[in-house]
Amino acid sequence: MSAVSLLGEIADVGRDRVRGGYSRHLFDPAERELREWFTEQARRRGLDVETDRNGNLWAWLGEPGPNAFVTGSHLDSVPGGGAFDGPLGVVSALDAVTALEKPNRPVAVIAFAEEEGGRFGVPCLGSQLLTGAIDPARALALRDPDGVTFAEVTAQAGLEPGRDDEALGRIGTFLELHVEQGRGLVDLGSPLAVGSTVIAHGRWRFTFTGQGNHAGATRITDRHDPMLPAAAVVAAARRLASKVEGARATVGRLVPKPGGTNVIASTVDLWLDARVPSDDRVRPLVDEIAEAASRAAAEEGCEVKISEESYSRTATFDTGLREQLRDLLGGAPELPTGAGHDAAILAAHVPAGMLYVRNPTGVSHAPEEFAEDDDVERGARALADVLRHLST
Amino acid sequence: MSAVSLLGEIADVGRDRVRGGYSRHLFDPAERELREWFTEQARRRGLDVETDRNGNLWAWLGEPGPNAFVTGSHLDSVPGGGAFDGPLGVVSALDAVTALEKPNRPVAVIAFAEEEGGRFGVPCLGSQLLTGAIDPARALALRDPDGVTFAEVTAQAGLEPGRDDEALGRIGTFLELHVEQGRGLVDLGSPLAVGSTVIAHGRWRFTFTGQGNHAGATRITDRHDPMLPAAAVVAAARRLASKVEGARATVGRLVPKPGGTNVIASTVDLWLDARVPSDDRVRPLVDEIAEAASRAAAEEGCEVKISEESYSRTATFDTGLREQLRDLLGGAPELPTGAGHDAAILAAHVPAGMLYVRNPTGVSHAPEEFAEDDDVERGARALADVLRHLST
Repeated sequence: MSAVSLLGEIADVGRDRVRGGYSRHLFDPAERELREWFTEQARRRGLDVETDRNGNLWAWLGEPGPNAFVTGSHLDSVPGGGAFDGPLGVVSALDAVTALEKPNRPVAVIAFAEEEGGRFGVPCLGSQLLTGAIDPARALALRDPDGVTFAEVTAQAGLEPGRDDEALGRIGTFLELHVEQGRGLVDLGSPLAVGSTVIAHGRWRFTFTGQGNHAGATRITDRHDPMLPAAAVVAAARRLASKVEGARATVGRLVPKPGGTNVIASTVDLWLDARVPSDDRVRPLVDEIAEAASRAAAEEGCEVKISEESYSRTATFDTGLREQLRDLLGGAPELPTGAGHDAAILAAHVPAGMLYVRNPTGVSHAPEEFAEDDDVERGARALADVLRHLST
Repeated sequence: MSAVSLLGEIADVGRDRVRGGYSRHLFDPAERELREWFTEQARRRGLDVETDRNGNLWAWLGEPGPNAFVTGSHLDSVPGGGAFDGPLGVVSALDAVTALEKPNRPVAVIAFAEEEGGRFGVPCLGSQLLTGAIDPARALALRDPDGVTFAEVTAQAGLEPGRDDEALGRIGTFLELHVEQGRGLVDLGSPLAVGSTVIAHGRWRFTFTGQGNHAGATRITDRHDPMLPAAAVVAAARRLASKVEGARATVGRLVPKPGGTNVIASTVDLWLDARVPSDDRVRPLVDEIAEAASRAAAEEGCEVKISEESYSRTATFDTGLREQLRDLLGGAPELPTGAGHDAAILAAHVPAGMLYVRNPTGVSHAPEEFAEDDDVERGARALADVLRHLST
């Protein structure tokens, strides 16, 4: 079964009727259905599926063991995301393994848990826990939008989140195929590229606290409305990021509470996603935005608390692997990216690399994300070639 | 049973664990429980309960009929609202009716549906439908945050929303007791006041549409991020309202979609609540804010659509009734308010009035909303006195 057909099989799982696209979040019904589907597909290929202590799914060809060639991506999505971000790398890996004969090293297909942070807010949570990049105590205390903790959810699923040296020790090479999340390949006229770097990035939570009150009965001069400094941060993030070469700063999630039309909010939470192609410049940019937040909060008689929810330095993929990939792909171009990936988390520990598949819209994290069938199959064949060369 | 005890009986219904306070929205489990509780309390007092075509609950003492003295308020809340806004007027009315002997006109206690617009966005929906102030076709098309229409919800409840001349024709006098939503009575040192006017007010929905995309992979210069013009409206609403005497403009509800941390929003909906103590100045203020929205949207390559969801001119309570109330309450002060009420909707059709009970925090639409037990009982006794004088 081709990668295109495999994607077709899950095309109706987790559609988001309100937002459009897909919403598949850790252990929600849609994501559970994808886990079952993955397990069934792996079994049909003679792979043995196990869930590690962090909820990552591993499908092993033969005995699990050291120096394994591991490939895959993730099945979860952002809220209202596209059909390719995550699943493309998983179906391509399943397809590639199908064609594999007599590998001389262990091979596994992986589906990482909570890559998008769509439920608990921290991206690459499965790979960050696996590698020890995040303190398990911090992860267990994370809450989803309904207030449920990661501790509750993992306990219910029988997981014991934490660093997993045994699992990490088995990975000899990690390769993740992913739809491109920009127009790099469109501009180059190429269907595939090899990943070079992932720029430094992180997430910061700003919580503004004012005084909730009646929108009609409260005079303007009596207000402490946290929406005002929150709005100021949206503007400041854009203004300050525009001054730094290659920087990106985004507020895509902003939640006033209680969120009534006729109610002055008592608190506003907003999340700042900031990325700069330089390890030394992300936190200084966030510091400047934080200063603007403090000034605006003080002007309105509000408080602001800022916490760093995640931060990843620039990740550079393994240079030897990149060279092998470029050779095997007939001189495919290399591309840096502003998007984070599990491969970038693993790159700090094992030789890791990425393959990108052309996205004609250049759009990602939205329903418009796309890849042509031909490019999907090109990607899957390339992954199968690489797998054959590096494991047989 | 006193008004204080009655409030105590519902003190655990619809508590909002995330926001604090209460969330009781039309036909959600909490609001249904309050309806059943109201019905039971009314029956214990020998009242006959009926639900009108718009979901308003009427509890009649004796035969329903013309020239009735009707009193009550509402049971629903804003998200995360206080314990008094709505229920205080209902429990005081139940308490007042208990003491009533042999009225010479029909008497009813009413609980209006969806007064806050907490589920479908339009305030005073029950009284607006009843009086024909809102087109039923428009109301039926309203959607709650999950996309469910008012048409679906009312069909399921067996309602046929629309103007109800029979119900309206029965009301000879309407009196609503309500917790004060500001510090007027605190400043005056008085426990009770008579309502004079409700300032002109309305709600406008702004929908900004941009291009959803990846927060890391999309360069700043390639963005069409609807959060930018949405934030500009928050700032503009404050700036422009500050220039108009007595004006209030609030953005308390703002929803970016899809709402992911690592996602540039594709759309942002925000609701503007605007009020000015002058019929001629509300819409011009909103027009100025709309102009700022259009400019900011154009700068970001986004679209904006603006729709008026509700608008109410200044409501002046019946002067004869106000005089009677002041006399009966021993010269209680009069107060205007910036808060909308069902009594203000009814005031365009029947003699209507309001009594306010002191709120020591001055806060409303938030958990800090409060009334001292003594003041609650004073209010209930005053309502009972008025009811006795005007109906026996």
